[in-house]
Amino acid sequence: MTIDVTSRQRIEIINIGGEVARAVAESGVEEGICVLQSLHTTAALSVNESADPDVKKDLLRQLALLAPRDPSFLHAEGNSDAHIKTSLLGPSLSLVVSGGRPLLGAWQTIYFCEFDGPRRRQVVVKCVKG
Amino acid sequence: MTIDVTSRQRIEIINIGGEVARAVAESGVEEGICVLQSLHTTAALSVNESADPDVKKDLLRQLALLAPRDPSFLHAEGNSDAHIKTSLLGPSLSLVVSGGRPLLGAWQTIYFCEFDGPRRRQVVVKCVKG
Amino acid sequence: MTIDVTSRQRIEIINIGGEVARAVAESGVEEGICVLQSLHTTAALSVNESADPDVKKDLLRQLALLAPRDPSFLHAEGNSDAHIKTSLLGPSLSLVVSGGRPLLGAWQTIYFCEFDGPRRRQVVVKCVKG
Repeated sequence: MTIDVTSRQRIEIINIGGEVARAVAESGVEEGICVLQSLHTTAALSVNESADPDVKKDLLRQLALLAPRDPSFLHAEGNSDAHIKTSLLGPSLSLVVSGGRPLLGAWQTIYFCEFDGPRRRQVVVKCVKG
Repeated sequence: MTIDVTSRQRIEIINIGGEVARAVAESGVEEGICVLQSLHTTAALSVNESADPDVKKDLLRQLALLAPRDPSFLHAEGNSDAHIKTSLLGPSLSLVVSGGRPLLGAWQTIYFCEFDGPRRRQVVVKCVKG
Repeated sequence: MTIDVTSRQRIEIINIGGEVARAVAESGVEEGICVLQSLHTTAALSVNESADPDVKKDLLRQLALLAPRDPSFLHAEGNSDAHIKTSLLGPSLSLVVSGGRPLLGAWQTIYFCEFDGPRRRQVVVKCVKG
C-alpha cells in the first residue's frame, strides 16, 4: 500500500499518522509489525510529538545546523543537506501493530520529513502478522 | 510484550539487552525478526558497545553538542533537545531473531536512551516468525 | 543469510545493494519485509543515492564534523567517533520486499557505512513473508 504525500515547501514535516493508520487497517493485520519506507533519498520518516507544532520547528532548525545548505558540498545538485538529513533520520521505520492499528505512545505521531521539496512523494506501508 | 524501564537521571543510557532477550524467548519465535519500540518522544533506542562504559559517556557528550539544551528553542516545555535526540537515534529498532534470541554481534547490546528523565518508560517488543 | 563486507579504508561507504538483492532472492520471499543488521558497533547501514558518488563524500564529510575524531573522548580505543556515527545512522534497516526484491526508489541504494576499518564485516539479512 502506497501513501502519496505532497509537500509544499522545500523543508517541511508532515503528519502522516492518519494515512498510516488507514493503510494498516486496510492490510487486515491485527497483531504484528509494519514497515514504512520513503522511496526517496531526500526525505525521511520519523516519530515525534505533534501536540505542540514548535517541536517540529525546533527539530528542523537544529537539523539545519547539523546539515547546513553549504555551497562547498561536492554534489552538484546543491541538495547535499537533504541527503545528509535523510541518512540521519532514516528512510524507513518499523512499528508494532496492535488491535489493527500502528502502536503509538500518547504523544507519538508519524512524520514524513521533506528536505528537498516541494514535490510529490511516496511512502510504502507493509504489514506482517505476528 | 512490554518492558518497563525506570530512568534515574535526566539523560541516561540503560542496557536493556537482558530484558529484550527475555521478551524474545517468551514470544516463542525461534527464527525471524523483532521490532522494539519506545512509546515516547523524548527517549530512543540504539545498539552500541557495552564492554566499556565510556562509549555511552562519549555518545551522550556528543549528542549534547548536536542537540544542546538551548533556551532559544520554541517548544515551551524546554525539552526540545530530548525530542531532537530521539529523532536522531530513532524510536524503534529492528533486529534479526536467531535461535530464539535477538541476534547481536560480539560487542553489541541494546540501549534505551533516556533524554528527559527521570521517568517510568515503556518499550514494546514484537516478534514475527520468518 | 550473511553478507560479508570487506572495507579497505578506515571510513568508507560501500554499496551492498546487489548483495542484499541476492540475499532476498535466495530467501524465496516474494512479498513482505526484510531486516538488514550490521553485527558491529562501529559500522552502520543507510539508504541513499548512488548515481553521484559525491553524495557519499558529502555525507562522510558532514559526519566527520558531527562526530569528530576528538582525542578528548574517554573511550580508550580512540574510535568513539565511529561508535557515535553508528548510533546516528543506525545498525539495522527495515525494507519492504516486493516481487522478490528489496523495494527501492529510483535513486535509492543500500549502503554499508564503515567507520573504523579496514576490516571484514558481516551484515545479516532476514526476510519475512507478509
